[in-house]
Amino acid sequence: MSIKLGKVPSIRRMPEYLGILNNLKKRDINDISTSYFAEKMGIKQINVKKDLDLLNVTGRTGVGYRVKDLIHGIEDFLGWNNTSNAVLLGAGNLGSALLGYNGFKKKGLNIVAAFDLKVESEKEIHGIKVMNISNFKDIVKRMHINIAVLTVPGEVAQKVADLLVDCGITGIWNFTDIKLDVPGDVLVQDENLASGLAELSVKIKMKFEQKYSEK
Amino acid sequence: MSIKLGKVPSIRRMPEYLGILNNLKKRDINDISTSYFAEKMGIKQINVKKDLDLLNVTGRTGVGYRVKDLIHGIEDFLGWNNTSNAVLLGAGNLGSALLGYNGFKKKGLNIVAAFDLKVESEKEIHGIKVMNISNFKDIVKRMHINIAVLTVPGEVAQKVADLLVDCGITGIWNFTDIKLDVPGDVLVQDENLASGLAELSVKIKMKFEQKYSEK
Repeated sequence: MSIKLGKVPSIRRMPEYLGILNNLKKRDINDISTSYFAEKMGIKQINVKKDLDLLNVTGRTGVGYRVKDLIHGIEDFLGWNNTSNAVLLGAGNLGSALLGYNGFKKKGLNIVAAFDLKVESEKEIHGIKVMNISNFKDIVKRMHINIAVLTVPGEVAQKVADLLVDCGITGIWNFTDIKLDVPGDVLVQDENLASGLAELSVKIKMKFEQKYSEK
Repeated sequence: MSIKLGKVPSIRRMPEYLGILNNLKKRDINDISTSYFAEKMGIKQINVKKDLDLLNVTGRTGVGYRVKDLIHGIEDFLGWNNTSNAVLLGAGNLGSALLGYNGFKKKGLNIVAAFDLKVESEKEIHGIKVMNISNFKDIVKRMHINIAVLTVPGEVAQKVADLLVDCGITGIWNFTDIKLDVPGDVLVQDENLASGLAELSVKIKMKFEQKYSEK
């Protein structure tokens, strides 16, 4: 079973559904229609239906879906009801921020330790131990960790990725702007902030040019 | 002139080309072929050609492109040779990290001030002034700022977005997981970390199930 590329936008929308559903739950609302999601999220109702079809949850005609069923269905689909332990590599500005972002734990990702090239003696950031990278191999093998969050500087990204692969890491959440070269059985999820900024920059530039040409 | 949806992946790849090109420049390499990019980036050569066709740069048969022409071409295409001033809203963990990320300035985004709901008296984070949000309107109008980076908690995201729009902000880089409701002439670039984590989670889960079913 592999993920079809067309499903990726649906998967990426799941956290948004979850956010809306958790809000409804707080307000004691029990049932919800696809049209409500469509309006809230600014997408077509048919796309909402396709997204929810990925889940193991059945709606009822005229009533819609039960809020709690959808919450369970999405958490189950994403595997967020089981927590995976992970490590973080590179405790600079971005890395430290991610260590302090307590939303990941709710989303199934529990960062148990962090490693940095520059840290000499063990310290803590937001309650998580940060160690020199020389300790990495021992700890990762001892704790059976498979997932790493990569927030090192671009210049050392490939070198650190090689170490991760060597130590049995099979999922890398890559925040550097380097395209990592890893074996085929290692998953890499790129999270490139520069790409988002590029998209915003071009849109703003085009809007400006459009405005100018209309005058 | 509007951006065709099909061009978005090309635009999002531009920072990666720029990274490769700047590396080549450092090594005093002057010419570069599309096949080099294709191999480095793990994409097809035809896609590299289509990407570079968006730029106002001409390659030469048998020689390829001049590295410095491509660097200029991409910076020009993205508007990164002109710096735009921006403000940041929400100086929590993620916001503070972004204030310390000095890569944005090179990419045309100069964060000149930050605002927070909880900050009582003016302070500095990574050399950038952080003020209470009550000062926002005055400063943004005085400095003619059009772009805002939104890193407030989800619960207040829409309220703060309303304030941004009221004060003339026309481009919002949205790091919250809320779908913002803004007028049609306001650009919103969503940067949802939870979506990336959802994609990684599902891929890992499917890989695990696949492994399990093969046994």
